[in-house]
Amino acid sequence: MENAKEPGALGDMSAEEFRQYGYQVVDWIADYLAHPERHAVLSQVEPGYLKNALPQSAPVNGEAMDKVLADVDEKIVPGVTHWNHPAFFAYFSISASAPGILGEMFAAAFNVNAMLWRTSPAATELEEVTLNWLRQMLELPESFGGVIYDTASISSLCAIAAAREAVPHLHVREKGLYGAAAKLRLYCSEQAHSSIDKAAIVLGLGQQGIRKIACDAEFRLKPELLDAAIAEDRANGWIPFCVVATTGTTSTTSVDPVAAIADICERENLWLHVDAAYGGAAAILPEMRQLFLGCERADSLVMNPHKWMFVPVDLSVLFCRRMEVLRQAFSLVPEYLRSSETDEVKNFMEYGPQLGRRFRAIKLWFVMRYFGVEGITARLRQHLELARQFAAWVDASAEFERLAPTPFSTVCFRAFPATLRQRQDWSEAEREAALETLNEQIMERVNQRGKVFLSHTKLNGTFTIRLAIGNLRTATAHIQLAWDELNAVLKEWQSAS
Amino acid sequence: MENAKEPGALGDMSAEEFRQYGYQVVDWIADYLAHPERHAVLSQVEPGYLKNALPQSAPVNGEAMDKVLADVDEKIVPGVTHWNHPAFFAYFSISASAPGILGEMFAAAFNVNAMLWRTSPAATELEEVTLNWLRQMLELPESFGGVIYDTASISSLCAIAAAREAVPHLHVREKGLYGAAAKLRLYCSEQAHSSIDKAAIVLGLGQQGIRKIACDAEFRLKPELLDAAIAEDRANGWIPFCVVATTGTTSTTSVDPVAAIADICERENLWLHVDAAYGGAAAILPEMRQLFLGCERADSLVMNPHKWMFVPVDLSVLFCRRMEVLRQAFSLVPEYLRSSETDEVKNFMEYGPQLGRRFRAIKLWFVMRYFGVEGITARLRQHLELARQFAAWVDASAEFERLAPTPFSTVCFRAFPATLRQRQDWSEAEREAALETLNEQIMERVNQRGKVFLSHTKLNGTFTIRLAIGNLRTATAHIQLAWDELNAVLKEWQSAS
Repeated sequence: MENAKEPGALGDMSAEEFRQYGYQVVDWIADYLAHPERHAVLSQVEPGYLKNALPQSAPVNGEAMDKVLADVDEKIVPGVTHWNHPAFFAYFSISASAPGILGEMFAAAFNVNAMLWRTSPAATELEEVTLNWLRQMLELPESFGGVIYDTASISSLCAIAAAREAVPHLHVREKGLYGAAAKLRLYCSEQAHSSIDKAAIVLGLGQQGIRKIACDAEFRLKPELLDAAIAEDRANGWIPFCVVATTGTTSTTSVDPVAAIADICERENLWLHVDAAYGGAAAILPEMRQLFLGCERADSLVMNPHKWMFVPVDLSVLFCRRMEVLRQAFSLVPEYLRSSETDEVKNFMEYGPQLGRRFRAIKLWFVMRYFGVEGITARLRQHLELARQFAAWVDASAEFERLAPTPFSTVCFRAFPATLRQRQDWSEAEREAALETLNEQIMERVNQRGKVFLSHTKLNGTFTIRLAIGNLRTATAHIQLAWDELNAVLKEWQSAS
Repeated sequence: MENAKEPGALGDMSAEEFRQYGYQVVDWIADYLAHPERHAVLSQVEPGYLKNALPQSAPVNGEAMDKVLADVDEKIVPGVTHWNHPAFFAYFSISASAPGILGEMFAAAFNVNAMLWRTSPAATELEEVTLNWLRQMLELPESFGGVIYDTASISSLCAIAAAREAVPHLHVREKGLYGAAAKLRLYCSEQAHSSIDKAAIVLGLGQQGIRKIACDAEFRLKPELLDAAIAEDRANGWIPFCVVATTGTTSTTSVDPVAAIADICERENLWLHVDAAYGGAAAILPEMRQLFLGCERADSLVMNPHKWMFVPVDLSVLFCRRMEVLRQAFSLVPEYLRSSETDEVKNFMEYGPQLGRRFRAIKLWFVMRYFGVEGITARLRQHLELARQFAAWVDASAEFERLAPTPFSTVCFRAFPATLRQRQDWSEAEREAALETLNEQIMERVNQRGKVFLSHTKLNGTFTIRLAIGNLRTATAHIQLAWDELNAVLKEWQSAS
């Protein structure tokens, strides 16, 4: 009970009580992280399970923390899909590393708003220091500054907003898109992430303001088509202003030819934004850097330490070579936020849409220091090696086939059993329809069994299973498990049909 | 050292090590929250202090967590402005309550992305449950749904994006503002928060797309001027589409006449968004509800539990009566995010710009359960009472004067010592200039002394000191301290001049 010792007193939970429950929660987390595999990866609850299990209204009187913690086990945990499970292979696999969690505890306790330098100098300067460290790790030139946002969706939105602001003579910030007669167009490949479309919608460009460029057979933007699209659009009165290239697309982790795209952007005077939200971490590895050639010429690049660098969500980094344009796009300093240090310091509120800014840099700092560059490198290499191993199994199998190259740690494949391969009475369309049904069923069945969690995409209309590796605890045994599960479910289907 | 026990092994920190350091961090936080007053509220460091104290590059090899934790004390704490200090009276005063911090620990450990229901049913459903509880506490009708974002900046941006989407026949989402010939205009008072201007810029309306309506002597939007502005704009080809009313402005916590504004919005078919980011918490108190009359007719309303409801940053809630419009404005479901439950569940990624979504609801749930509605109510009442007390001291003083009504827990005032009041040889402008200099100096000097932290605004050009009360630990002694500090610094000035 709150204030059990001092009836009627206000204030917070006592320090003693916090210590007691804090230890309990630490024990709980230590145990959880040590044994993630005792849970089904994908939660097995039915829609509405929690709404039906909790009261209809908030409690009138405070409840004992014991009861709340008991409910975490009883009511919350069954409905958690365990992103920390080493066999979580869906979407992009991530980790809340233990050092990152310790960093989050400090962020919550300090509870500062890093909007102005003076509202927490440590938060502002640690953001500058850690991003400078990260920039060096990625081998980006010194001309890149950086800022931390919550998500890549916001990082890319801010980059495109800066690009919009950078168009000469339009004055979009002042006049708006209608007032400025800004018939702007943004370019990205058909494989770009949905957050780029969403940014176009939010920023008022509309879906017509974004033009998707077709890809080659390996899902990479074709620069010659980009070139032609820009010329055609200019002829039709559009104002091309920005190209988004991706190094590590969501479906297949394909890598756009950034250097060739940078040539076009330079010639056409367009802002080049690189979406390296997932793939960017791999640039830490010298042997992977050739995939990022041209990124050093980008105007901005997003990379998410909360994806493949062991930092708990959320922490997305936007590196930008034109920080002053980003500031022009967003800066608004009302009197109540004016401070005397404005000229000598960075007030990060001026660089994005959000005034409220958590002390996110501290968890990045904890992760970088605890693991070190070598420790991070070794872990990324292991994930790349595991993906190569899994891809090799797929390639060697008569029952499965790979559907895309595997430049990073995500494998795209499908079941293509000999029985379906060999049926002569089917048209190609019938075969593909049967394969789609089969693979969707295989994936859903594997996920229901709860040992591993996979997700899917479609590539040129083909249903494709994805296995994404990125969790700290993932080892050979877990990809072996995924492979065994897939084969077991396929066998089930074969015996049933 | 990482993996000291198993050289060469990869993976995370061991469970034993996490337990050991987790306990240390819990002890640290318990001690920190119990003795916030041993620190200066406003950090006293110089710009560059941390950049100069930390290495230029990330460590190559992992470092011992002991070293990292020692650096928190030595290098981070001196640069922290202590938002948890009970004499933090600047901006809006907030608290990271201990139950909220425990909730954050779980959020970090689970590390789920609540983008889809299936990616963590517990996170999605707890969001629905806690927001339904909060809706009832604020006495908003059942027709309001809700969604959690990071900040009020984003909540208001989303509300205005939905308003933009709701304009009939324009198709802004598809065509963009230029393509749709959308000469849209948004209205708010001169006292509205800068995040509304920022939303207008981001959404492509531009600063010309927002029209500021003048206020009455108590800083409340004048509905008759809003009415006239809308008529004038329509006559000039503008398309009015949205009004933002504020219940608790940032400068003075003034409350716009929402009911009168709702009448206009109804008649003119405009979206009514209410910014109750700070003030909204007070609607939990029955005796305060008259300030919120008309909010039940809004299309959307933002309220921040991380401001005045003891939840650690960040957690902002948008309540919305037209959730389907919000979804229309933002929904994009690429194949790789398609899931079989789409129709029976809420996939919150469809309701905002951000795909990545932390498990924020859990800290709100911890706070609501531990304190209960009565516990929260009692704490808010105490803050309101403290503000009344401080306002009464100002009003009774011959040396200070109040500059705005005090409907909530924020007091606006300035020093106006008799010596300046009585000088006959000054013009009004000279007197005001002297008062501005004096008050700015008083505030800066009080802040430098480190015992309390105040911020300022300008009201009709007049430099105004603000004292905002909202921290759980703030008691009479702390507002007494602020009052003593102000008077002491004023005496210093009087003896010096």
